[in-house]
Amino acid sequence: MELRPRTVRRLLEQLERLPGIGPRSARALVEHLLTADAGEVTELAEALGALRREVRLCEECFLLTEAERCAVCRDPDRDRSTILVVEEPTTAWSVEATREYRGLYHALLGHLSPLHGVGPEDLTIDRLEERCRGGEVRELILATNPTVEGETTALYIVRRLQPLDLVISRPASGIPVGGELSAVDQLTLAQALQARRKL
Amino acid sequence: MELRPRTVRRLLEQLERLPGIGPRSARALVEHLLTADAGEVTELAEALGALRREVRLCEECFLLTEAERCAVCRDPDRDRSTILVVEEPTTAWSVEATREYRGLYHALLGHLSPLHGVGPEDLTIDRLEERCRGGEVRELILATNPTVEGETTALYIVRRLQPLDLVISRPASGIPVGGELSAVDQLTLAQALQARRKL
Repeated sequence: MELRPRTVRRLLEQLERLPGIGPRSARALVEHLLTADAGEVTELAEALGALRREVRLCEECFLLTEAERCAVCRDPDRDRSTILVVEEPTTAWSVEATREYRGLYHALLGHLSPLHGVGPEDLTIDRLEERCRGGEVRELILATNPTVEGETTALYIVRRLQPLDLVISRPASGIPVGGELSAVDQLTLAQALQARRKL
Repeated sequence: MELRPRTVRRLLEQLERLPGIGPRSARALVEHLLTADAGEVTELAEALGALRREVRLCEECFLLTEAERCAVCRDPDRDRSTILVVEEPTTAWSVEATREYRGLYHALLGHLSPLHGVGPEDLTIDRLEERCRGGEVRELILATNPTVEGETTALYIVRRLQPLDLVISRPASGIPVGGELSAVDQLTLAQALQARRKL
């Protein structure tokens, strides 16, 4: 006999579609939501609804924003000669959290993936080229992920923007600070050895 | 500089309050929700809102239901002489999934926990006693969790309902079927040995 009320089943199905949420955690979530403060559940439902209504991509750099242009693009104090390129807008949050970067950003909204039919025209590379041709930009930091797709995407951008005579770099790969050598994968260790620094 | 739009920050905070969701998974969820089909997000928000509006506890047994009484209590074909007692209403879903049980349920809505100030009056034990005194019930299966609190709660119910002359049992503890002896904790293994079956 089906003991789960229709409304509960519907919510379980919705939750299980989300990344990282399996049947067990969906159930734990429903149990929590049923016993939590009613206000908390209403707020969550409202915050979910507001997300797609309020948040959009910056017209300039494709970071998330509630205005036409994001906080970085609007800030007159940012260094407009450098653009740091990420795959996803949210990755910029991590870069910004280091407090090491004062330039602009550009989100590609993905990476090249011929296997999945994602070509340059599906990313925001045209817009990036346009920004680089504007005259102000002198440096490009390609912070795509250190994966096959991320490397391919970085390489493509390097080739395409070569004529513009920019300084193009990529963040170093290596052993995470505080990590152990034995815990690092072979590829990372090999890269870290090749890029060893003289003391 | 804060790169996360206010709406995104609000949703992240809401998500991180949920059980089993940390900052990383909250972020993965927001990324998914931003790129997912807009209909999917609306449906999720609606399903969340509907949960507290539509779902309540059965007046008889405290399982989840959308009516006054749950599907089990309303079904004339269930065996009304047996009640299986669980801590949480959702635990009944697992019991029902075994297709081994044809009786009624009773959710205590928690367990005794003197440390957290939870006494018998905070659970639905009065209502359980009332149901047992009704005359129809002859057997009680105490399926509270095999934890200190669950055992204490079961013991309390046994003592309190002793005068009613019911058959009271508790599901066996032991090695999970398909599990390995070496993977089972000492307490479970000790119980499994004590309760060994002759072949």
